[in-house]
Amino acid sequence: MDAISGAIATEPCQLTAAEAAALIRNKELSCEELVRSCLARVDSRDADVRAWLWLDPDHALRRARELDKLPVKGPLHGLPFGVKDIIDTFDYPTTHNSPIYDGARVGRDAACVAIVRGAGALILGKTDTVEFASGGRKALTRNPYNFAHTPGGSSSGSGAAVGDFHVPLAFGTQTGGSHIRPASFNGIYGIKPSWSLLSREGVRMSSITLDTVGWYSRSVDDLILVGSAYRLAEDDTPVAVKGLRVGLCRSPAWDAIEPAGTAALETAAKRLGDTGAIVEELVLPAPFDRLLEAQNTIVTAEGGVSFLPEYTNAFALLAPDLRAKVENEITREALLAAYAVADACRPVFDGMFGTSLDVVLTPSAPGEAPLGLHTTGNAIFNRMWTLLHVPCVNIPACRGPLNLPVGVTLVGPRLTDARLLAIAKAVAPVIDTDPKAGLRDLWTLP
Amino acid sequence: MDAISGAIATEPCQLTAAEAAALIRNKELSCEELVRSCLARVDSRDADVRAWLWLDPDHALRRARELDKLPVKGPLHGLPFGVKDIIDTFDYPTTHNSPIYDGARVGRDAACVAIVRGAGALILGKTDTVEFASGGRKALTRNPYNFAHTPGGSSSGSGAAVGDFHVPLAFGTQTGGSHIRPASFNGIYGIKPSWSLLSREGVRMSSITLDTVGWYSRSVDDLILVGSAYRLAEDDTPVAVKGLRVGLCRSPAWDAIEPAGTAALETAAKRLGDTGAIVEELVLPAPFDRLLEAQNTIVTAEGGVSFLPEYTNAFALLAPDLRAKVENEITREALLAAYAVADACRPVFDGMFGTSLDVVLTPSAPGEAPLGLHTTGNAIFNRMWTLLHVPCVNIPACRGPLNLPVGVTLVGPRLTDARLLAIAKAVAPVIDTDPKAGLRDLWTLP
Repeated sequence: MDAISGAIATEPCQLTAAEAAALIRNKELSCEELVRSCLARVDSRDADVRAWLWLDPDHALRRARELDKLPVKGPLHGLPFGVKDIIDTFDYPTTHNSPIYDGARVGRDAACVAIVRGAGALILGKTDTVEFASGGRKALTRNPYNFAHTPGGSSSGSGAAVGDFHVPLAFGTQTGGSHIRPASFNGIYGIKPSWSLLSREGVRMSSITLDTVGWYSRSVDDLILVGSAYRLAEDDTPVAVKGLRVGLCRSPAWDAIEPAGTAALETAAKRLGDTGAIVEELVLPAPFDRLLEAQNTIVTAEGGVSFLPEYTNAFALLAPDLRAKVENEITREALLAAYAVADACRPVFDGMFGTSLDVVLTPSAPGEAPLGLHTTGNAIFNRMWTLLHVPCVNIPACRGPLNLPVGVTLVGPRLTDARLLAIAKAVAPVIDTDPKAGLRDLWTLP
Repeated sequence: MDAISGAIATEPCQLTAAEAAALIRNKELSCEELVRSCLARVDSRDADVRAWLWLDPDHALRRARELDKLPVKGPLHGLPFGVKDIIDTFDYPTTHNSPIYDGARVGRDAACVAIVRGAGALILGKTDTVEFASGGRKALTRNPYNFAHTPGGSSSGSGAAVGDFHVPLAFGTQTGGSHIRPASFNGIYGIKPSWSLLSREGVRMSSITLDTVGWYSRSVDDLILVGSAYRLAEDDTPVAVKGLRVGLCRSPAWDAIEPAGTAALETAAKRLGDTGAIVEELVLPAPFDRLLEAQNTIVTAEGGVSFLPEYTNAFALLAPDLRAKVENEITREALLAAYAVADACRPVFDGMFGTSLDVVLTPSAPGEAPLGLHTTGNAIFNRMWTLLHVPCVNIPACRGPLNLPVGVTLVGPRLTDARLLAIAKAVAPVIDTDPKAGLRDLWTLP
């Protein structure tokens, strides 16, 4: 710890993924050194943070030594990933934080995991999650910036593990706001890609229309690096912040905003404006007001379908709120109406981009991470975008009155994820003016 | 075999699922007797039919004896199921008929399997399939009515196993026409439910927008019986064929029809009309002409996403046509346009029902099962309905010039599966005028 001075990364676990990958490629850092550093960080912090449900240090070190002997497999060679425990891995149990699947092993990687492994990634372990990412038990994970606060959810462990420098990269998922909200609360970067862009095979299903796999990191470069494994071609068209047309969208959920959320959004907008971006209020047309209700209808009705196996076979061990999904009384008409609202809004939103709009700027959460672990915060600023199937990127923006991180979300039209990442790369240095804050704050904590 | 006379079922494997379930419930038949009879049928036929990729008679008999000792678990107690080998089962390998997954075991049931097990079903084994239900290798399965002909695909083994009396019930899947077409070619009943009605968790993903799990049987009662395990509430509103408003839909694919397909459709329509149904031609409006192309665009683009793990990690063992999906050059605009066509047509189709239409009657396939195992036939009459997310039921209608079965499809609006099954139950005796044909023909074959 003495080696840290002026928040300059000198321990390997403090590196971003792109920094570590470059050092590994140049033989200036071994995979084993990186994993040892990550494991030491976990060791010193996880009694408090509790990000991990399963970690096997010996297995991870063995794998790191194997990777050190191999030629570079791909862009993620040797980079440690956390995997939300609703995502299958062949070598660890997948419990969904459910007593039904305590210790259950599947023996097959989820698609998202198999692909990063193929690119050289090292799966460090499984991170805690809200039960099935849907209800029931909360994760035991705590916010690394203040253990009395939630790290958000349902991707609680993955968000905290990346925020607290246990791993440079991790997988989360989003059905409502489970991926972007924890990114905001833990002061990290995260992308929830367009629906259908990335296979969700081997990821516990909650809602077929909504569930989306995303990833976390501590820089936009790292988001792009992981994207390359998914053949998300890098967008080389230059992006200038000067002249960038930004739609400031307070969204139909604006009533739920808190002062810290307003401050983050307006700070980000002002910084962009000061740098030459053209920031204008974007008010969505009336049908968009119905998206929140539609998302709720779909997540309930499709959740009923998804939890029927456990309802049938393990009723006593299924959480009451998940049983209630199976017993929902949503009518066919209501579900079809919800699908119709989404079907109608998606192309309208896509069509807003082009001549007068490059990117949407909108809140990632109402404000700072709430106090207590009985809640994971409010997904109201995320749910609409999930249903729209559009890509979202969280950018850390500032700190709130409790010195907890608050982020903002960039949104693009469907299936322009590479372009959105290119825009995020250009605007991140403008919005995230203190990128070393986490490094500084989390190493000086007791 | 001597016991068979006049095509009356006297061996347990000849029973429908509903018949067997009633006998088991009344202790007039044991689960073990039923499984022994099924295994004997497999033993005598499968060297030719080749429906099964994995069968463990000892395991199945053990499970049957366990079920005989238990109180009746549910409506499917003791009923043997075949499971298409892209669907996970905890006790057998799941190979997807791919060399990449030779002998691979997952250790967890797919949702559809877990639910029927909870209702007492017995999983007899895994049935052959087109590789990943998508391309590459064909199943080795042959049509039980003529071994020189295809049983259809990709649910080849499941269709043939039910048609040839190896099991009363089996799971298939449909992304294009993989479930309904084999039902037609094997002279059996099958339902492809509405998309999102039944969890597809644990079923190999090919296209998230299209993949749908269905089941096969030899009667409508059996389709309803399995549906009850999925909480598909039975529709008690009486259905009279007299006055039933049937839309005879030749569909935008009509150019592909063969004489046997025309005969099946017109025979079914005539029988319905003669029984008092009001059969009128239904011509779909112009946008529906674009559904076939849209389905092709979606299956290719989403297939590229689904096969990226194997492309990344097992390129040499991935079939060239599946590699080509990953390398597809479908643009964002083309994929979004395909989604838009489907989004626009779905509510239009749903809206046709009600005041002047109760059910659509349409071909299940161009005609009889084609000669040879190099093809599984043409899915052109199924693909549009799969993309529309509507429920489809195959009803055997007649024999073609080669004495091979030809079916017709009943279609209802989205999420009216229980109603469609009730209609199917009423019209099946009218359309399927020789329900014992399979029993008679397949037992007198050499």
